[in-house]
Amino acid sequence: MKKYIAEFIGTFILVFVGTAAAVFGGGAAAGSIVSLVGIALAFGLAVMMAAYSIGTISGAHLNPAVSIAMFVNKRMDMTDLIGYIIAQVVGAFAGSLTLLALVNSAGGDTKALGQNLYGADAMINVGATGAFIVEAVLTFIFVLVIMTVTSPARGNDSLAGLVIGLTLTGLHFVGVPVTGMSVNPARSLAPAVLVQGTALSQIWLFILAPIVGGILAAIVAKSLLGTEVDPGDQDLDLDLSKN
Amino acid sequence: MKKYIAEFIGTFILVFVGTAAAVFGGGAAAGSIVSLVGIALAFGLAVMMAAYSIGTISGAHLNPAVSIAMFVNKRMDMTDLIGYIIAQVVGAFAGSLTLLALVNSAGGDTKALGQNLYGADAMINVGATGAFIVEAVLTFIFVLVIMTVTSPARGNDSLAGLVIGLTLTGLHFVGVPVTGMSVNPARSLAPAVLVQGTALSQIWLFILAPIVGGILAAIVAKSLLGTEVDPGDQDLDLDLSKN
Amino acid sequence: MKKYIAEFIGTFILVFVGTAAAVFGGGAAAGSIVSLVGIALAFGLAVMMAAYSIGTISGAHLNPAVSIAMFVNKRMDMTDLIGYIIAQVVGAFAGSLTLLALVNSAGGDTKALGQNLYGADAMINVGATGAFIVEAVLTFIFVLVIMTVTSPARGNDSLAGLVIGLTLTGLHFVGVPVTGMSVNPARSLAPAVLVQGTALSQIWLFILAPIVGGILAAIVAKSLLGTEVDPGDQDLDLDLSKN
Amino acid sequence: MKKYIAEFIGTFILVFVGTAAAVFGGGAAAGSIVSLVGIALAFGLAVMMAAYSIGTISGAHLNPAVSIAMFVNKRMDMTDLIGYIIAQVVGAFAGSLTLLALVNSAGGDTKALGQNLYGADAMINVGATGAFIVEAVLTFIFVLVIMTVTSPARGNDSLAGLVIGLTLTGLHFVGVPVTGMSVNPARSLAPAVLVQGTALSQIWLFILAPIVGGILAAIVAKSLLGTEVDPGDQDLDLDLSKN
Repeated sequence: MKKYIAEFIGTFILVFVGTAAAVFGGGAAAGSIVSLVGIALAFGLAVMMAAYSIGTISGAHLNPAVSIAMFVNKRMDMTDLIGYIIAQVVGAFAGSLTLLALVNSAGGDTKALGQNLYGADAMINVGATGAFIVEAVLTFIFVLVIMTVTSPARGNDSLAGLVIGLTLTGLHFVGVPVTGMSVNPARSLAPAVLVQGTALSQIWLFILAPIVGGILAAIVAKSLLGTEVDPGDQDLDLDLSKN
Repeated sequence: MKKYIAEFIGTFILVFVGTAAAVFGGGAAAGSIVSLVGIALAFGLAVMMAAYSIGTISGAHLNPAVSIAMFVNKRMDMTDLIGYIIAQVVGAFAGSLTLLALVNSAGGDTKALGQNLYGADAMINVGATGAFIVEAVLTFIFVLVIMTVTSPARGNDSLAGLVIGLTLTGLHFVGVPVTGMSVNPARSLAPAVLVQGTALSQIWLFILAPIVGGILAAIVAKSLLGTEVDPGDQDLDLDLSKN
Repeated sequence: MKKYIAEFIGTFILVFVGTAAAVFGGGAAAGSIVSLVGIALAFGLAVMMAAYSIGTISGAHLNPAVSIAMFVNKRMDMTDLIGYIIAQVVGAFAGSLTLLALVNSAGGDTKALGQNLYGADAMINVGATGAFIVEAVLTFIFVLVIMTVTSPARGNDSLAGLVIGLTLTGLHFVGVPVTGMSVNPARSLAPAVLVQGTALSQIWLFILAPIVGGILAAIVAKSLLGTEVDPGDQDLDLDLSKN
Repeated sequence: MKKYIAEFIGTFILVFVGTAAAVFGGGAAAGSIVSLVGIALAFGLAVMMAAYSIGTISGAHLNPAVSIAMFVNKRMDMTDLIGYIIAQVVGAFAGSLTLLALVNSAGGDTKALGQNLYGADAMINVGATGAFIVEAVLTFIFVLVIMTVTSPARGNDSLAGLVIGLTLTGLHFVGVPVTGMSVNPARSLAPAVLVQGTALSQIWLFILAPIVGGILAAIVAKSLLGTEVDPGDQDLDLDLSKN
């Protein structure tokens, strides 16, 4: 149970810090207070915060696409997968609801909670196919880093949280103009449900594309990078690195 | 005595570097020299500087809310708690007084020393309740990271200063628009006393909310994350991680 | 074969993330969405992403100038050098073609794919000689860091990917105004071929200068810094550090 | 001899990357291409680059104020102190001359090479006394971090270069508005000699203040933080940490 509570807290941190930074700072448009750099740092460092706190109990997936990739590579069982995803979604709603209450109290636009949008509502309108590709590719990169850096065979336990956080920061510079940057179904679902409208009608993309990208990353990590090799199996390990 | 002097120097570094960056750089408004990103980096990296210098002697709490959380989880005794808080407050005043002298010498506005304000004087007016919640939540996240990353059982000694500093950086993107970002009673008290006015009449919030958030974090860190478990007690350790 | 696929993926990550950030974010001009800081972080963190994922298999050179330097210092053989360069060029084309398709779909300028340009088309017109010197010097610094931090004798395995990535970030602040910042023939070739025109007629500089800078760095790393010393050879090691 | 060449290369990297970023990017004024954040990152990451390359041979002081502090705490002898300072000054001139040649070639203002200025020529005019205090205090903080993080007893070998670099980044947010940020006599001397005028008449401050701040830091590091304690002397070590 403790790891589900941890995952709830961690996803709250990610969604509250990231979307509140975007909303309070005036978004990513040129000349805003927070600027795209600030939003990218807020989301990325929020993952780092979760990793070095609740991550010691749950691993800080904070993201159904990450948990599904972990499940695909047999690093977690079905019970935990379901528990994690529920905790992540509930944590994301807690984050978005806290932001909504604050925005409401400030007399702000309660229909702007950092939701993800593509097409005509995005800065760069690449259409649904383009947005799907961008979200899938960015999630592929994000989850490929996560699967490797947390891998028993290939990983870097000490730095993992920093590297994963800064990876999310770096990917924001591509994702924000196209979709507002999701790579995370839980992070997209909560604001979409609360603001309704286009965000909710487009939510399928922000659920599906990250999951597709994440599963591809799990497969590539296992087959190409050998992330699921038993670190005690030195022969196989050497084989892979010399291949 | 040495650790109190260390804590004095460290809090001076935090308050001087952070508030001087904000004041000399024209604040967090869009189009300022330093920008919100610069202020967030200045405060966060100042914590990192203190951690990797005087932190080797005192632990670099720099913040009564952090010291109280450490006390709650029995990592320091009452004598040290009092000594640390006095050193932090004196160090913060040294930082603010140095800034005041420089601002005065430059003919600048001596009523603008990077003080914390909420309500009508903040960029986002969420009222006293909203500001209290934001400060308490941000301090909760900040102290949760600190308690974990410095924990004998769960910690990461080498990276702790960097992670804690970047956590403070990340939280600034939410806190600055709402309160100017405190999460630290000592950092708020010194400028408030020197500029008086609204900052001083609102100081209760910047003392109370961080302490509440910090104590909550201490409790969650201990009960949920097992930060106070004796690292030598392998059985209990394993129990927690599998829970 | 696996390491060539890894290198293909890594260079795709570098070129796609870096150039898409620049293009979608409106370039490095003052007042753009992404800003020079954002572009510098996108390229640098993309290298970090590749290093901590596919780097575990291929070393994440992502750059013919890096691979040639490795070859010069006998860290890779001719077969691998050719394989790596082919994989890097193909990966860079995959990144640029993905960006081209997205730009096309958004009705954007398909002649602006983040290509490198010097002279009248750059922010700072230092001429061909100046641009050659800047690219060679920046690549020298970049490869000097890489050769050292990945050196068996002098290196820092755990941090290497972060240090190399942040090195690329730091160098962007000099390179972008002068050339758009290459230090990488593969990163320059793909957009140049796709947009043709001046970028293609100037491509020789972005192939030659980084290779010259990289080879110089390899020589200095070996002769001055002792990066190719056998770490088991303690006597020689001590000699060098005391020299 | 090798370590002097290393120190020459390292100081070249610091001065060229830092000042070229400032000059090519239009300075720290609001609305410039590089922005204060970019300048702060360029200087800080340049130190990191030097630390993880030539630092493996020379320690990457790059700065007479740092070398003098090392000498005061008996970490280097007089011969090396002189050799290091000469190498640093020559390296700084190489950096500034390279920049001058590029600026000249671009038809830019050859009297703007990133020189340090205080008083009426700075963004914030705190007068000579204020500027001296700011430079001395910032150098004190910078050198205090360096002495600790490179200390045999208290240090963190692996992270030192990153922490020192990011410390310089953080301090720029205070120093740039007041003096253009020196904390380094070599970094100030080269541009001042090349541009002459006010920069040269003010150079005494950028030589003296960093040396004063650095010596104070050496004394505090040794007496308060125990940085020069023999790490093998466990009793003394424990005494200090419990003091």
